[in-house]
Amino acid sequence: MTRYEVLANTMAAQIRSGSLKVGARMPSLRQIIAQHGVSQSTVFRAYYLLEEWGLIRAQERSGYYVAPGAAVAQSHAQRPVAAPAEPAKVDISNLVFSVLEAAKHPGIVPLGSAFPSPLLFPLQRLARSLGQSVRFVSPWSTVADLPPGNEALRSQIALRYLGMGIAQPAEELVVTNGALEALNLCLMAVTRPGDVVAIESPGFYAALQAIERLDLRAVEIPVDPRSGLDLDALEQALKNYPVRACWFMTNFQNPTGVTLTVEKKRALVDLLDRHDVPLIEDDVYGELHFQADYPLPARAFDKRGMVMHCSSFSKTLAPGYRIGWVAAGKFADKVQKLKLMTTLSSSIPVQTGLADYLQHGGYDRHLRKLRSALLAQLASMDAAIRRWMPPGVKWTRPDGGYFIWLEFPEPIDAMELHRLAIEHGISVAPGPMFSVSHAFENCIRLNFGHPWNAKIDDALRVLGQLVRQVPAAPTSASVSAPVKRR
Amino acid sequence: MTRYEVLANTMAAQIRSGSLKVGARMPSLRQIIAQHGVSQSTVFRAYYLLEEWGLIRAQERSGYYVAPGAAVAQSHAQRPVAAPAEPAKVDISNLVFSVLEAAKHPGIVPLGSAFPSPLLFPLQRLARSLGQSVRFVSPWSTVADLPPGNEALRSQIALRYLGMGIAQPAEELVVTNGALEALNLCLMAVTRPGDVVAIESPGFYAALQAIERLDLRAVEIPVDPRSGLDLDALEQALKNYPVRACWFMTNFQNPTGVTLTVEKKRALVDLLDRHDVPLIEDDVYGELHFQADYPLPARAFDKRGMVMHCSSFSKTLAPGYRIGWVAAGKFADKVQKLKLMTTLSSSIPVQTGLADYLQHGGYDRHLRKLRSALLAQLASMDAAIRRWMPPGVKWTRPDGGYFIWLEFPEPIDAMELHRLAIEHGISVAPGPMFSVSHAFENCIRLNFGHPWNAKIDDALRVLGQLVRQVPAAPTSASVSAPVKRR
Repeated sequence: MTRYEVLANTMAAQIRSGSLKVGARMPSLRQIIAQHGVSQSTVFRAYYLLEEWGLIRAQERSGYYVAPGAAVAQSHAQRPVAAPAEPAKVDISNLVFSVLEAAKHPGIVPLGSAFPSPLLFPLQRLARSLGQSVRFVSPWSTVADLPPGNEALRSQIALRYLGMGIAQPAEELVVTNGALEALNLCLMAVTRPGDVVAIESPGFYAALQAIERLDLRAVEIPVDPRSGLDLDALEQALKNYPVRACWFMTNFQNPTGVTLTVEKKRALVDLLDRHDVPLIEDDVYGELHFQADYPLPARAFDKRGMVMHCSSFSKTLAPGYRIGWVAAGKFADKVQKLKLMTTLSSSIPVQTGLADYLQHGGYDRHLRKLRSALLAQLASMDAAIRRWMPPGVKWTRPDGGYFIWLEFPEPIDAMELHRLAIEHGISVAPGPMFSVSHAFENCIRLNFGHPWNAKIDDALRVLGQLVRQVPAAPTSASVSAPVKRR
Repeated sequence: MTRYEVLANTMAAQIRSGSLKVGARMPSLRQIIAQHGVSQSTVFRAYYLLEEWGLIRAQERSGYYVAPGAAVAQSHAQRPVAAPAEPAKVDISNLVFSVLEAAKHPGIVPLGSAFPSPLLFPLQRLARSLGQSVRFVSPWSTVADLPPGNEALRSQIALRYLGMGIAQPAEELVVTNGALEALNLCLMAVTRPGDVVAIESPGFYAALQAIERLDLRAVEIPVDPRSGLDLDALEQALKNYPVRACWFMTNFQNPTGVTLTVEKKRALVDLLDRHDVPLIEDDVYGELHFQADYPLPARAFDKRGMVMHCSSFSKTLAPGYRIGWVAAGKFADKVQKLKLMTTLSSSIPVQTGLADYLQHGGYDRHLRKLRSALLAQLASMDAAIRRWMPPGVKWTRPDGGYFIWLEFPEPIDAMELHRLAIEHGISVAPGPMFSVSHAFENCIRLNFGHPWNAKIDDALRVLGQLVRQVPAAPTSASVSAPVKRR
């Protein structure tokens, strides 16, 4: 750990313990230099780091002050921790973009990818549906298919809910450009700048990006890779902070792969109901279940229209088509209007093409094949991890989706592992991508969504070697990281 | 005008004149009742209206205060006027949505529509391109075509710039879901909540919606229906306020149809350069020119990458495909990342289909036909206005696009005209849609983008009758409206 990181962590501890109160002026440059015997630039860099963590805030020509966001950290010293809305923005985004960018190169073994292999999708059959239906698209659909979206498509989606036993009115379905747009619109619909949103830690980085982009504040709720979201911690957060919305993944969570039990989902909905807080439920992997049935989403237990259930075809059928949706309950009208204001509507020929495929293309047959392919790939990945990873490593074996969350026994710098792996033609998703505080430095997410082959197996072997060479993360030393997992 | 509207306008005048300063407490309920002899509920409703206009702000358990936003109105009493970022939101949006919603009904004569008739587009030829190219889309394009977008499509777009004599690097082109997403991303890229943005008045309502949604403040720059944007007013605004961005339409402006001369565009770029302010240039109608050449956009005179030139195929070729782009200059990287965070990418088969059409489909031949159809329709609309509208009406005859801006000599309530017209199966776009302050009550925008027929001619006749029955707008009485046009 460098000098400025040591200094930043020391001061962060003072802020978290409350010995420096919210609104208090931070010690002056002169004072700190005298007290800690460090250089001016060390103090600056420490302060920049504290600012990035959301603990302090600069006031022009006046110095640094303990930021309002630090209150959350103070009143609940362990967890959840307030996310710095704006200052962390550049950091998380650059991290995410560099990982996504690295995954773009076709030669790279895509263990860090967010998508399964497109080779698993019936692209030719889909193309046929698209090509046929576009020839018969009514010229007037331009106007008629404005949000909430193409009617045939929404009926097909409503039918799939019915298959789960959920009576989902098609009128509450808004078709979006992938689930990502759905999630972003939902967040906009129920928050204003400055509001507090509860998210998972570790959790999907897009939630962090959205929160930063919209000037919101995040409360991170710990996710245990085996049991999932910590409902007690959530209840504490709901009591202590003015939480305006929750953004959770209830099935095959990204990145851990964990699924909440039906009891927990029911309890989650009850808890949020008592606090009158809407839930943005990200359920893009639900269809990729390895057991017999789709694990019921929290939406199934919602009686008041407070759960906005978001999903898409991007992970199960047609990544490039960019069609998702939200069953937005009582917020449907608001979401629909936001969609009109920002992207107007989703591509109409693509909507009609998908509707045709869902009616005639054999989606369920495709899903059965896809699920068994993923399950077989999980077994191969599991075996390769056993073979190649250092002893003491822990990993999850999810009941669906295509992510494994891997935790190394020794402190390692996952960012450095990511960098080294790229040099060896392998991408991984480093743990720090998945939290505001860049915690989980000794974790990575692996994608088993690609047909198994010798190249992937060899990539795991190389990764196993690299792990042994990678140093510990700079921030995982003596002073505790801002967010503790368990 | 109702009692509360009279009261609200009276107090608005006091605020604008500065006799009630920013931050001052508004008179108490008791005081006003005593002074004006009105009821308690009249005061409440007047205050709600003032709040909606952004002139006052409620403070919990303490009463109403003159809002910070009113400062702009005060320091520059005539124009530009500060837009209330948040309070006007619901209002403008509902207005716009009700107009859009009304235009959705297939039986309605769509004089208020924002699109030309889809019958003017080569939808079958396009469908062929889409159907053919989707069959050969590489499965890996999901990853490769992430923003900035499909390479073939971006090359084709760059070629079109070259046709105008603009060397546009394809790397700076970001493909979006229509120009609307491009404009929104650009605005997000160069502003933070609270920033001031210069927009046109009258201007495209999506700019107002975006500004409200992103918690920005607007300075309205007057647009003369004959000469266009008032550069002197813009210069004043740049001097007086911390303007962070401009969002202007330089060709066939919506709603007036006016085009800036080359000299004015050059002067605009120079002026913004001197103040180091980026220009978001909305040029979605440029290809629909009735004279020989595409009127050069301001982008053509930009040497520093400060102009973000936004356009799309929605108004010229394929409304429902939802493909637009921005030539984002030095902001390209930032825009691209925002796109990744919010909608990830535009639909890939649609991008490849359009690229194929642009290469092989005869886009220029189609455009020539489309332009001459629009020009003929303009002539018919022009004649129908002469025949059916009351004497003294003024209207624009644009050199491109498909909008006419019509100004009635007598004060009328365009909102009421809109409502009545809908009852008669006709939509119009009422003037108040096009400004923050809901000015232009005696104006409407007419769409001549639909093949002329007896039904449209008859709609003009009915409209001419309705205009004669419609009362004056409630706010156009004694107290002047917040924004004056000339």
